Amino acid sequence: MNAPARFLSPEAVQRKQQAVEQLAACLGSRLSTGDAVREQHGHGEASGRTYPPDAVVWPQSTEEVSRIVAICANHDVPVIAFGAGTSLEGHVSAPYGGVCLDLSRMNAVLDVRAEDADCVVQPGVTREQLNAYLRDTGLFFPVDPGANASIGGMVSTRASGTTTIRYGAMTRNVLALQVVLADGRIVRLGTRAAKSSTGYDLVRLLVGAEGTLGIITEITLRLYGVPEAMTAATCVFPDLQGAVDTVVEIIQSGIAVARMEFLDEPQVRACNRYSQLTLAEQPTLFLEFHGTADAVSGQTARAEDIAGSHGGAAFQWAAEQDARARLWKARHAAYFAARAYRPGCDCLIADVCVPISQLAQAVAAARADIDAAGLFAPIVGHVGDGNFHVLFVLDPAVPAERERADRIYDAMIDRALQVGGTCTGEHGIGLGKRAKLVQEYGAEVVDLMRSIKTAWDPRGILNPGKIFMEDHKT
Amino acid sequence: MNAPARFLSPEAVQRKQQAVEQLAACLGSRLSTGDAVREQHGHGEASGRTYPPDAVVWPQSTEEVSRIVAICANHDVPVIAFGAGTSLEGHVSAPYGGVCLDLSRMNAVLDVRAEDADCVVQPGVTREQLNAYLRDTGLFFPVDPGANASIGGMVSTRASGTTTIRYGAMTRNVLALQVVLADGRIVRLGTRAAKSSTGYDLVRLLVGAEGTLGIITEITLRLYGVPEAMTAATCVFPDLQGAVDTVVEIIQSGIAVARMEFLDEPQVRACNRYSQLTLAEQPTLFLEFHGTADAVSGQTARAEDIAGSHGGAAFQWAAEQDARARLWKARHAAYFAARAYRPGCDCLIADVCVPISQLAQAVAAARADIDAAGLFAPIVGHVGDGNFHVLFVLDPAVPAERERADRIYDAMIDRALQVGGTCTGEHGIGLGKRAKLVQEYGAEVVDLMRSIKTAWDPRGILNPGKIFMEDHKT
Repeated sequence: MNAPARFLSPEAVQRKQQAVEQLAACLGSRLSTGDAVREQHGHGEASGRTYPPDAVVWPQSTEEVSRIVAICANHDVPVIAFGAGTSLEGHVSAPYGGVCLDLSRMNAVLDVRAEDADCVVQPGVTREQLNAYLRDTGLFFPVDPGANASIGGMVSTRASGTTTIRYGAMTRNVLALQVVLADGRIVRLGTRAAKSSTGYDLVRLLVGAEGTLGIITEITLRLYGVPEAMTAATCVFPDLQGAVDTVVEIIQSGIAVARMEFLDEPQVRACNRYSQLTLAEQPTLFLEFHGTADAVSGQTARAEDIAGSHGGAAFQWAAEQDARARLWKARHAAYFAARAYRPGCDCLIADVCVPISQLAQAVAAARADIDAAGLFAPIVGHVGDGNFHVLFVLDPAVPAERERADRIYDAMIDRALQVGGTCTGEHGIGLGKRAKLVQEYGAEVVDLMRSIKTAWDPRGILNPGKIFMEDHKT
Repeated sequence: MNAPARFLSPEAVQRKQQAVEQLAACLGSRLSTGDAVREQHGHGEASGRTYPPDAVVWPQSTEEVSRIVAICANHDVPVIAFGAGTSLEGHVSAPYGGVCLDLSRMNAVLDVRAEDADCVVQPGVTREQLNAYLRDTGLFFPVDPGANASIGGMVSTRASGTTTIRYGAMTRNVLALQVVLADGRIVRLGTRAAKSSTGYDLVRLLVGAEGTLGIITEITLRLYGVPEAMTAATCVFPDLQGAVDTVVEIIQSGIAVARMEFLDEPQVRACNRYSQLTLAEQPTLFLEFHGTADAVSGQTARAEDIAGSHGGAAFQWAAEQDARARLWKARHAAYFAARAYRPGCDCLIADVCVPISQLAQAVAAARADIDAAGLFAPIVGHVGDGNFHVLFVLDPAVPAERERADRIYDAMIDRALQVGGTCTGEHGIGLGKRAKLVQEYGAEVVDLMRSIKTAWDPRGILNPGKIFMEDHKT
């Protein structure tokens, strides 16, 4: 996780100071070099090390972002975009110092076009803010990573989450972007059309680029009609295999399932305690169905039959908004529930994704390793995507716990890669997984990525040190 | 559409001959320099000019593709990938000569993994071949551009078609690729996991790259369970607006519609004559619903209600496989039906895509221009995506017809871009739309694309002259 601070020549230090002075002259109180502010912007939610930037700025417009980036480019000063600070792999840290662009004041919903089911937002809009704004339109934005992340951050980490099985990840739901390039130029990528075959898909290149190719200043998103009917359900299983088999059969049967989340027994226990629920403390699926009223009622019944044929029991339906909200609130609180189960502990969140045929085995192997190591680490999974997380709840006073967790996580990734999976389904590379990226694809492919970075940002000022290992720096 | 042949120095001519001799030594009868073969490989289905390659080769393995590309790279000879030859913008033509890689013998389905709903195919597999292969698995590959294109070609043009509203374009359905780079190296991009946040999305970069960044030699595709029930329907409308309003309301209501195709009155007339049908000769929607039996029957009834409220009449259902097949065969034959309506004519197929709120107006404006120009040009549309095609059926003996059609097409694109649309929804750029790409995004964005091309293919041997205008060549 460590990236050593780069040695700066006296000239470089002076140029950085000049840049900060120029920015301060433009931005006044919307620039801070205070220790607390820099500290707060030097890390996301991960438990890794903090690397504070030299200064934090709060731009209010695309033109201002452009001017800030141009000043930084002229002085070879790094620029790090910061949204809600909810990323988990050190994406927003500043291992080389530089200027943190806090985009939280660029949080306007600029346009909603109901007939086209799209909208234009600034990058600091959060997903909960957007859905609150959309409440009266009959539309919603479905991508749901759990955290109340900013839309800009969700684009940049290629976020997904509980609804990906039905509505796709950010990859599917970004139509167009306005981007400030490494030299301050402003460009528009993509269109408002539902699809386009116009050469290289630069929108999809920016989705997941983690702020290393440009600063995203405007996003055009796909929206969806709020379904006429939504039903949620929980179902417990004697083991994970039954839950996974249920999921596979539900997908293949064409049932329009919108969410399928797996919680293992320790996670259910933690949720019960944290959210005052009385769920049976067994491997559990949380399901949600969206559609027309008749379709949803027929399909939920079908899903119950399928679950029953794989050992599922104690189906509990919740069609009412309140009951559904309570259920999903408990699911979304899984992270806090896990932490609260062992007060005073840190949480390392592991993220791997495998072909679904390999999921039961991958989760079982992780569980066996966790139990053998004597750790408390609940497992949750976006099981329809083959994506699961281990929430390692670790005592910071016992470094051996972290070491054991790291070894287990390494083994999880090794196994995922062996069966054709990936080292991150949705959290991204950041600082934390740069070596894993090379392990997954090989240095040649990472160098292909890096050649794009070099072409677009030859001075390497955009979020330096992220995605690419030092030894791959050109 | 013209790209002047590059002047070659005597040394370059000699090196090209050396390359062809080396290739002939490796490939024997799987290399041809015959005129008829070269001519046949010098164009797709478009009515544009033919640019024959210097030689055509038929590789049988990835390793052979790698060796061929390496030999061409060493001699600065262009390499043009060729699948089924169904592209429409000159993608497979060889304006600089070079070696055409005909991938039709690399047409094996390498693996089908039913539980994961994915498969691995070679690039020469066609979509009909793949679905015939899958027939007994309960799975199918949904992307349907009409033509029996090769999967490699469909990846390379970012193809979509009639089912995109439900299953997405190629963008959504390619999990992983094996690619031969411009120097002959073989790399693997993507994984078998349903999603991944591992740095730059190189799979999505290759989808739509039109053979300019690498030669695709293996493709891992998402598959889908064959729906339990499928129902097709036709419905006629007094005008296009009613049809479009119906489509918007169906989408927003959450009905699981799989296909929504619009045919205007001249197209219905041509289909009736060609396919011996008796459809009412009015603006018509072809619809198809996929899902569980109860969901489909409920939703088709809902769709009929919605259509009725927008002036739709004469709903005709076809739940039986045969009746559905007859209907869709007529839709797929639209191109041939249009050509047959005016024997001896060429067909220029226009392709634009707009936000759906703009579709009715865009189609009406095109229809008005066509009628004012006295041309025969039916219109079909993947109306759920805002994507429509004008089939200009033109007498090659009357050049003024083509001139009028080109002017109308230019105006269609101008209008599409003015309302946030795109100059191509699914046919790609190739040779034919390079100027339109610049018009749509501006030279700066096209240069960003080109910088990737230059980084990956510095000698410019992969499908040169495609996507990028000469004046943008570095």
